[in-house]
Amino acid sequence: MANTSTGLQLRSIVKKDGTLEISLVSVPTPEPKPEEVIVRVDASPINPSDQGLLFGGADLSTAKASGTPDRPVVTATVPPAALNAVGGRLDQSLPVGNEGAGVVVRAGTTPAAQALMGKTVAILGGSMYTQYRCIKAVQCLVLPPGTTAAEGASCFVNPLTALGMVATMRTEGHQALVHTAAASNLGQMLNRICLKDNVGLVNIVRKAEQVDVLRKAGATYVCNTSSPTFMDELTDALAATGATVAFDAIGGGTLAGQILTAMEAAANRSAKEYSRYGSTVHKQVYIYGGLDRGPTQFSRTFGMAWGIGGWLLTPFLQKIGHEAAQTLRERVAAEIKTTFASAYTKEISLADALRLDEIAVYGKLATAQKYLINPNKGLAG
Amino acid sequence: MANTSTGLQLRSIVKKDGTLEISLVSVPTPEPKPEEVIVRVDASPINPSDQGLLFGGADLSTAKASGTPDRPVVTATVPPAALNAVGGRLDQSLPVGNEGAGVVVRAGTTPAAQALMGKTVAILGGSMYTQYRCIKAVQCLVLPPGTTAAEGASCFVNPLTALGMVATMRTEGHQALVHTAAASNLGQMLNRICLKDNVGLVNIVRKAEQVDVLRKAGATYVCNTSSPTFMDELTDALAATGATVAFDAIGGGTLAGQILTAMEAAANRSAKEYSRYGSTVHKQVYIYGGLDRGPTQFSRTFGMAWGIGGWLLTPFLQKIGHEAAQTLRERVAAEIKTTFASAYTKEISLADALRLDEIAVYGKLATAQKYLINPNKGLAG
Repeated sequence: MANTSTGLQLRSIVKKDGTLEISLVSVPTPEPKPEEVIVRVDASPINPSDQGLLFGGADLSTAKASGTPDRPVVTATVPPAALNAVGGRLDQSLPVGNEGAGVVVRAGTTPAAQALMGKTVAILGGSMYTQYRCIKAVQCLVLPPGTTAAEGASCFVNPLTALGMVATMRTEGHQALVHTAAASNLGQMLNRICLKDNVGLVNIVRKAEQVDVLRKAGATYVCNTSSPTFMDELTDALAATGATVAFDAIGGGTLAGQILTAMEAAANRSAKEYSRYGSTVHKQVYIYGGLDRGPTQFSRTFGMAWGIGGWLLTPFLQKIGHEAAQTLRERVAAEIKTTFASAYTKEISLADALRLDEIAVYGKLATAQKYLINPNKGLAG
Repeated sequence: MANTSTGLQLRSIVKKDGTLEISLVSVPTPEPKPEEVIVRVDASPINPSDQGLLFGGADLSTAKASGTPDRPVVTATVPPAALNAVGGRLDQSLPVGNEGAGVVVRAGTTPAAQALMGKTVAILGGSMYTQYRCIKAVQCLVLPPGTTAAEGASCFVNPLTALGMVATMRTEGHQALVHTAAASNLGQMLNRICLKDNVGLVNIVRKAEQVDVLRKAGATYVCNTSSPTFMDELTDALAATGATVAFDAIGGGTLAGQILTAMEAAANRSAKEYSRYGSTVHKQVYIYGGLDRGPTQFSRTFGMAWGIGGWLLTPFLQKIGHEAAQTLRERVAAEIKTTFASAYTKEISLADALRLDEIAVYGKLATAQKYLINPNKGLAG
């Protein structure tokens, strides 16, 4: 059996001089408290939501490699504007990795902790790009028998975000929803949820091959921003579904405003008389990602009943409360191989994650490239 | 006594070919139903909110005069993009004028209607650029004795909007507010409300003389966008007041985003640890006007807890319900000569409102130019 007393952990630091440094450090594995367990992390995805913390807004074209093969170091320059935005983390060596899965290799003395020994569990806890993660037993989601760590690695961020979108749609009184960057892992998951739960979904993508991916997965409405008749197609899909809320992963550019404009046009198709302030139907776009980090721009051609805002998983979960969140988590575990299945391009080690050629691929946030880190790859087993 | 059987009314029509036409038509005064009264309109302001309906998005540099001195006609071209936005009103001759005040000259048979005979009342009812307005007695707000129609002409749009902003601030859990174009009639009113009710207010203006106007009126925080240290001054004022909601009359450009950025910077001054998604304080900008009709643009440098949206008086009043709205209206009537006093540059007749030289002034939406129409000027009395 491997020595679990210390383990490698990925760390990211942004220094006051504007240098990002990513490295691997050896950290002692803590003795679990009675209610805690030690999980050997075998799989942790690199989500877009991890990359902000990992790269600290650095310009990746400036990335340089140093260190040794076992202990590689990557440095890059954080431009002044981005440095401003990360003022709160300067000179702090931060662990990374929102979620992952692995096997419980040690357990505290409480029955709840002991019951997890040897089980494969999923965790949303941060600091997951690490060999051994100490965590409270209550934070572990036990995966169904026969589920691998790789299959359970993405139990939280994407599944709960997708479920959170549908729940937000319902809570705020909308009857269908729009999703951008819809061919992503998250988007395909949302499509499966909507098909299963009979919820109207308008998928927006930017390439013909992404249209195909979603059509093959059974999607009814897929609009391609590169089509010359995109706005007409979108308006038709919005009118057909009645979707008045959108979740946008892109953030920058004009798409959020175009969605509101099309929603207004769809609402006015059924309007009976002229209203100088536009339709009274509230139209909402939630920006939950920043695939385009540039500015957001819109012309206000959609009346007065509209909103654009940020949407984030954690405040959503806090708002619905522990019990409702637990119900969502249990659904994810039960359907982890079907509705909530994730696909990865590649499994890499912690040291691989610091290779410039790998960063050049996974750092792009491309829809078709999703990486899985196995912190114990070639190290433990 | 004047003949009240017919009266002049201002009308605006946008024709399918993209021509705006403003004219005066003679309309018969209806016989009041039992619960109705006929008000001789002596004063009705030209608010920014009237100009959308009046001009239909026309390019005023193309305005041409025709007709006779008594029955002038103004035509102008509506650019194609704007024409799209007013599709619902094409070829309809629409009356204009949200609010006004005057004297009840005839009354229906019910006691409520009869009780208003000879009284000076204020009305929010639309179609106020007219000599005689037939309206339900219950819609009339009786002005305190000694109040002129000119003093009571702006009882609704600006006063209720300003009170609505403070009420929205409270309902949504904010402790202070920001206002742009703050030297306007509305802005000065909001400043008086906030001083009286002890509510923190950050005023944003764009000229030094507007700073002076507000300082003389007792404002504590006035930030000038043309100051080279605007963002620092704004952040200081936001930190001092704790304002996390803004009401923006401008709409276009970068100001809404700058306000959110400054709110985030103010929130982070008191943050204890780094949060990669920014502060958890919800920051909100409501766009209620469109002084800058250009696109809105912002860089998302303010975390994830933010929103930008439209804000409109009518849905606000519907949301709070009739009783709460009536309480607000009664406060306005009681303080119409103090807190809710309006100042006008000029009083003009209906025919004057169609003079190109006057349109060139009031059509600009300049803070310092506010006109009052007296539909009975030189015609009745």
